[in-house]
Amino acid sequence: MSTVEQNISLVKDFTYSRDLTRRIVEPLEVEDFGIQAMTDVSPPKWHLAHTTWFYEDFILKQYKENYNYVFEDTRKLFNSYYETLSKPFPKSQRGLISRPTVQQIFDYRNKVEEQVLELLNESGQVDEQLTFFIRLGIWHEQQHQELLLTDMKYNFSVNPLLPVYKEGRAETEGITFHQPVEWKAFEEGLTLVGTNDASGSFDNEQPEHKHYLYPFQIANRPVTNGEYIAFIEDGGYTTPDYWLSEGWSTVQEEEWHAPLYWWKEDGTWYHFTLAGAQPLDKTQPVSHVSYYEADAFARWAGCRLPSEQEWEHAFKTENIEGNFLETYLYDESRAQHNTVFGTVWEWTRSPYSPYPESARPDGALGEYNAKFMSNQMVLRGGSTATPQGHIRPTYRNFFHPDKRWQFSGIRLAKDGRV
Amino acid sequence: MSTVEQNISLVKDFTYSRDLTRRIVEPLEVEDFGIQAMTDVSPPKWHLAHTTWFYEDFILKQYKENYNYVFEDTRKLFNSYYETLSKPFPKSQRGLISRPTVQQIFDYRNKVEEQVLELLNESGQVDEQLTFFIRLGIWHEQQHQELLLTDMKYNFSVNPLLPVYKEGRAETEGITFHQPVEWKAFEEGLTLVGTNDASGSFDNEQPEHKHYLYPFQIANRPVTNGEYIAFIEDGGYTTPDYWLSEGWSTVQEEEWHAPLYWWKEDGTWYHFTLAGAQPLDKTQPVSHVSYYEADAFARWAGCRLPSEQEWEHAFKTENIEGNFLETYLYDESRAQHNTVFGTVWEWTRSPYSPYPESARPDGALGEYNAKFMSNQMVLRGGSTATPQGHIRPTYRNFFHPDKRWQFSGIRLAKDGRV
Amino acid sequence: MSTVEQNISLVKDFTYSRDLTRRIVEPLEVEDFGIQAMTDVSPPKWHLAHTTWFYEDFILKQYKENYNYVFEDTRKLFNSYYETLSKPFPKSQRGLISRPTVQQIFDYRNKVEEQVLELLNESGQVDEQLTFFIRLGIWHEQQHQELLLTDMKYNFSVNPLLPVYKEGRAETEGITFHQPVEWKAFEEGLTLVGTNDASGSFDNEQPEHKHYLYPFQIANRPVTNGEYIAFIEDGGYTTPDYWLSEGWSTVQEEEWHAPLYWWKEDGTWYHFTLAGAQPLDKTQPVSHVSYYEADAFARWAGCRLPSEQEWEHAFKTENIEGNFLETYLYDESRAQHNTVFGTVWEWTRSPYSPYPESARPDGALGEYNAKFMSNQMVLRGGSTATPQGHIRPTYRNFFHPDKRWQFSGIRLAKDGRV
Amino acid sequence: MSTVEQNISLVKDFTYSRDLTRRIVEPLEVEDFGIQAMTDVSPPKWHLAHTTWFYEDFILKQYKENYNYVFEDTRKLFNSYYETLSKPFPKSQRGLISRPTVQQIFDYRNKVEEQVLELLNESGQVDEQLTFFIRLGIWHEQQHQELLLTDMKYNFSVNPLLPVYKEGRAETEGITFHQPVEWKAFEEGLTLVGTNDASGSFDNEQPEHKHYLYPFQIANRPVTNGEYIAFIEDGGYTTPDYWLSEGWSTVQEEEWHAPLYWWKEDGTWYHFTLAGAQPLDKTQPVSHVSYYEADAFARWAGCRLPSEQEWEHAFKTENIEGNFLETYLYDESRAQHNTVFGTVWEWTRSPYSPYPESARPDGALGEYNAKFMSNQMVLRGGSTATPQGHIRPTYRNFFHPDKRWQFSGIRLAKDGRV
Repeated sequence: MSTVEQNISLVKDFTYSRDLTRRIVEPLEVEDFGIQAMTDVSPPKWHLAHTTWFYEDFILKQYKENYNYVFEDTRKLFNSYYETLSKPFPKSQRGLISRPTVQQIFDYRNKVEEQVLELLNESGQVDEQLTFFIRLGIWHEQQHQELLLTDMKYNFSVNPLLPVYKEGRAETEGITFHQPVEWKAFEEGLTLVGTNDASGSFDNEQPEHKHYLYPFQIANRPVTNGEYIAFIEDGGYTTPDYWLSEGWSTVQEEEWHAPLYWWKEDGTWYHFTLAGAQPLDKTQPVSHVSYYEADAFARWAGCRLPSEQEWEHAFKTENIEGNFLETYLYDESRAQHNTVFGTVWEWTRSPYSPYPESARPDGALGEYNAKFMSNQMVLRGGSTATPQGHIRPTYRNFFHPDKRWQFSGIRLAKDGRV
Repeated sequence: MSTVEQNISLVKDFTYSRDLTRRIVEPLEVEDFGIQAMTDVSPPKWHLAHTTWFYEDFILKQYKENYNYVFEDTRKLFNSYYETLSKPFPKSQRGLISRPTVQQIFDYRNKVEEQVLELLNESGQVDEQLTFFIRLGIWHEQQHQELLLTDMKYNFSVNPLLPVYKEGRAETEGITFHQPVEWKAFEEGLTLVGTNDASGSFDNEQPEHKHYLYPFQIANRPVTNGEYIAFIEDGGYTTPDYWLSEGWSTVQEEEWHAPLYWWKEDGTWYHFTLAGAQPLDKTQPVSHVSYYEADAFARWAGCRLPSEQEWEHAFKTENIEGNFLETYLYDESRAQHNTVFGTVWEWTRSPYSPYPESARPDGALGEYNAKFMSNQMVLRGGSTATPQGHIRPTYRNFFHPDKRWQFSGIRLAKDGRV
Repeated sequence: MSTVEQNISLVKDFTYSRDLTRRIVEPLEVEDFGIQAMTDVSPPKWHLAHTTWFYEDFILKQYKENYNYVFEDTRKLFNSYYETLSKPFPKSQRGLISRPTVQQIFDYRNKVEEQVLELLNESGQVDEQLTFFIRLGIWHEQQHQELLLTDMKYNFSVNPLLPVYKEGRAETEGITFHQPVEWKAFEEGLTLVGTNDASGSFDNEQPEHKHYLYPFQIANRPVTNGEYIAFIEDGGYTTPDYWLSEGWSTVQEEEWHAPLYWWKEDGTWYHFTLAGAQPLDKTQPVSHVSYYEADAFARWAGCRLPSEQEWEHAFKTENIEGNFLETYLYDESRAQHNTVFGTVWEWTRSPYSPYPESARPDGALGEYNAKFMSNQMVLRGGSTATPQGHIRPTYRNFFHPDKRWQFSGIRLAKDGRV
Repeated sequence: MSTVEQNISLVKDFTYSRDLTRRIVEPLEVEDFGIQAMTDVSPPKWHLAHTTWFYEDFILKQYKENYNYVFEDTRKLFNSYYETLSKPFPKSQRGLISRPTVQQIFDYRNKVEEQVLELLNESGQVDEQLTFFIRLGIWHEQQHQELLLTDMKYNFSVNPLLPVYKEGRAETEGITFHQPVEWKAFEEGLTLVGTNDASGSFDNEQPEHKHYLYPFQIANRPVTNGEYIAFIEDGGYTTPDYWLSEGWSTVQEEEWHAPLYWWKEDGTWYHFTLAGAQPLDKTQPVSHVSYYEADAFARWAGCRLPSEQEWEHAFKTENIEGNFLETYLYDESRAQHNTVFGTVWEWTRSPYSPYPESARPDGALGEYNAKFMSNQMVLRGGSTATPQGHIRPTYRNFFHPDKRWQFSGIRLAKDGRV
């Protein structure tokens, strides 16, 4: 692409990304924008503002002379965790902030967007570094688009009225797996993991590096609700043998008896979805399970979870197609066949760690990914809430092993040749 | 009064009370209605709905045949603590409920009001019991009117933007005490405490009963900010001798160094008010102190707090005039002189206990007051946030000794004759 | 008594008191001396040392020139809560201190005793103030003698082996109430409560003062286990109506279904006692109930608890006889008849507050009683673990309304004439 | 070795191991055996009993017909975490159990030892499996020997008297590093990690497997106290950039300003050791740091921590010699030179995960190691509290990244060639 074409593409992607966020929150009432039903989630309003502040602090502050924050207290309120930039407002209190109002936040978004576009339209300005930062801003917003959905779902779930975000089908509805699992088998040997594409990936996916794999097999589809119910009915949640020690403690303390959002009424399983309460479809992929549950299920099934390297090796050449945020939001006739990407994130057995010879960027960017490399597990593949353009075969998502509010599911693996 | 006149008066009071609530929340943004910055407070929206539900469950349900709740889940969401009626929604989660929306809550209020008025206008209906329940509904709403102000103040205080509820003067501004304290002295002997006016008082004020008092003196005005600063500067918060044991633990755990909402900047004391951040006026009454602080201040001052019987004996015949909610909201030229009622609630040394020969009403009404008679202290006199019609010399307010978010102040007393 | 006789009596009481403590801990293993199974209790070792330190800091330090503490760190370790004297070691960590050893603590006791006796034997030394302090030291040790028993019982109760402190009968065994309750009735009028005997009572019992009582009746015996079982079986622990609001929360949070130490096995009620696990005797007085349970039981029974003034008025002239620590420890043939004093402490409905015109002593002594006057309820009458010489009709014990590890029971009262 | 020789060797190792435990607790007072100053540690008494119960439940129960536990409640009290065997007693309450007494625990040890020796002396009995279990019993006891020291140290540290376990030199005293660090460099390529020696290693070290390494360098000695002080003085604990996100939260919440056991007095650094309070020697290796601190130090130093594979590759052929438990306990003239093994455990950057193609053993043995594979980091090399016979180049120790009560230190690594 020529530089001009690149600029046009950047502007297009930026605009698309900002609009997509607006589209996501369209069904919300003003009241929905402010709530935070647990510390892990953020109020929708905060996501709107934080993804905007990001452009201010990482771009406008550097590229605009004498740039003034739109709100004086922006950094105080909407910095998430960049300790090098300012003292972040306590995450657990984000739901207590009624001002600025939702309207003011939308105005804020508009003002910052105008200035970013102004910057991109000024000839000569869009050097490689700015391009990188804009891309980062878009990726960052994409991450928060997924969180907007998962956080709203959680927020709504504590309301006894069980509000509906979007009438119609539940998030993964229509994605059915009638067929038995087939196993894809891979031989032993060195493989390449990660990427060197600095402009097209996060720091945590870099660099590409050799990794030695042993023979393994991986399932051609994720575990279904029906299969998971079999685990529950076989005493899955009452048999300590299946569980990691900390998983078992969590089961006891949190009184887990099923995935998040599930309940049983008169012998039928229901779950809460963005379309409200729904009976469970046994042919859909199981979602909203923690790593502990995924790991326990795999042990019960006589299998294990794949490592992230196995996952990447197995699916490196798959097309990036499937059930994504856009399919969920716009496409009523979305594909019902089995795809690797989208639908549910898949827990791997790999703790989230730095790749060999990786470098932590300096300053605030060094806080983007690397500082979370403790106590979290890698998930791969994206979900029905992930924007399609956000996912890659090398993409590493990460959550603590007890978290369940993401669309997180299970893909089984096992050792050895067929 | 004739029955007709009584009905007219009841309708007038009911309508006035409902309008006053609307007037209180007028300056709020939609976003402000949902927040709950600590478990002790409730979101404004909840107050609006709860004071409406009260009329449904205590009156309409009984007097209207086949009455249907306006919202199916009303009882689930807006019952506060009446265990005999339904399982209350957890208090700590009231801020997580975005639906029903604010507009729906206002509609709810209107619908219930219409039905109550209909009931009052149907001839013959307004018997003594209904009159009592309507009065109770009004009193109940008055209590929540005060809480609306104190809760909003707390909610706003955690926002770094320090939002303003009402421009202009702070709550007690203009109430100045230039003069030194004068002591009113009382002789030893039996006095009468409480009242037998069943239709004009809460159960916890009844019955009137004899109580033996020893000679005491009581201050003619509450303690000022300036006097309280002297206590702070004399090591009040660092000297365990002044404190009750549990007060001292609270000081340490909560890291109290001053009343709630106070901070010092460059040598000047400020406090957060419903008019935003303001410099402290030393001649105003100190407010937002806990019982522990009031008790410690009194010990430091070589005095003590009055008992509730002493307080009532001393001020039984005072006029009910002073700085009340209406003065604060409407009256820009409000009285600046010293009054016993209004301005700040005054902590007494009396734990909140049943009066001799008092009876706990049956059913849900028995839960109104009596079930809180443990671990709380009595406050007397009303505050700048109390509706004028709500206060009486026999009125008993009660809070836990560590609470500070009410407009609670200090009036000193001492033993003996002059 | 002459001064010499008084001295002899003081020496005798002091020696008796110190020996009684030794006698109490005789059945313990060295290992038992160090444990603290919850923050409310203290390790036996700590009681031994603390009651000894008390003599050092309140007496020897004042009366002996250049007195040196036996352990350099005595004040650090064995001061309980006298903030004016030194920074107390955190109460919750008393069970973590293995040194000084038990033997060293016994040596410590001996050394301090010798010096106290030396002081008492020096002619001319025993002035009124010293006499007072020695009496206070004895009373103080008596309080800890009771705690030694109740704390050990609690400590043992968490051990699955359910160790036995003293073989044979449980604490209140043999105290049977076959007869139905009889009601003692009292007329309305002024009574005198408290005492002016400064040398024979605690500050919190002083001064004697007038109090107006309304007609009431009080039961001639405490509530039995059998009566309490009827309350349980009638849904006592599942019916919110009977309970104070904070009582009901405690029932839920702590999952109370019966008094402390009770459990049901194959349809039979058992309780843990200082004689190990025992079947419950329905004719014995119920013990180890909280104020919340006592209050709920009374409401269920259509009665109420007495106020402390009523209790004192009713039993002012009873003989101080009954089941006390000495009966429990020494007297196998102890009285089985009904007495007012001893057996179980009886919860009153009175919050623990200062008496009219009472004064808080200066300095450390001011911390003895007065600083606990918040959030606690008064108990009267003493228990099977109280040393006989410790109790008086005016004696006020006090605990938080949720505490159950004392031998605390229920005596019913009701309003009005027969 | 012949079978007879093997038996003799097994008996010798078993006897040696049991005696070593006795030797470790020799300096303790009876009172020291019961304390548990935080949930992470266990009372010495519990270690003595648990390492004995292990022989009962894993060996005697299987090899002795109709075996009866020495204590009826052994499994209840002394099972640590084997959920498949019995419901373990809550770990946090181990310090509350005064019975069985210390003497009874010693008798218990003797009785079980006798029966194990009887089993080993019966001809024909010592098959491969029994040998394996005895070895496992010894290894298990060795792990608890290390914990006995680290737990006692922690227990003593909360006592203001700062008791001394062993007079003389602190644990790592005499181990001085005067010389600057030298870097050992390694080339890129496949290496072998782990072992296939099923009878000579834990399951978590198996199987031997290929792992691809990139060029790296590793320090020839651990970081010293002096180097760590430089980090502190350069703002190490106040600069968020150096820290993992959860490390930084821990620093704030726990108010960490230095390694565990360190304090500064009049400008001098001291630390608490098993020889009591001692001034810090800057040439000794830093110890009692968490993974978070090790990682932050490495980032500050412009380096990183080694992976466990790098560590193993670098030191696979080193002799197992150095400062171990035996040196610490017995050898006053112990080596002062630099060794890889012993002295301090070294945090690696590797989360504790299963090796490729590893299998989790069935039943209780499967709970030995594998169920802890979440949220923990691998440490390598052993410490001054590790029995010499316990350590191997392939040995994997693991703790949560915030734990500091082990003798855990830092060895630096960096990427690339020299």
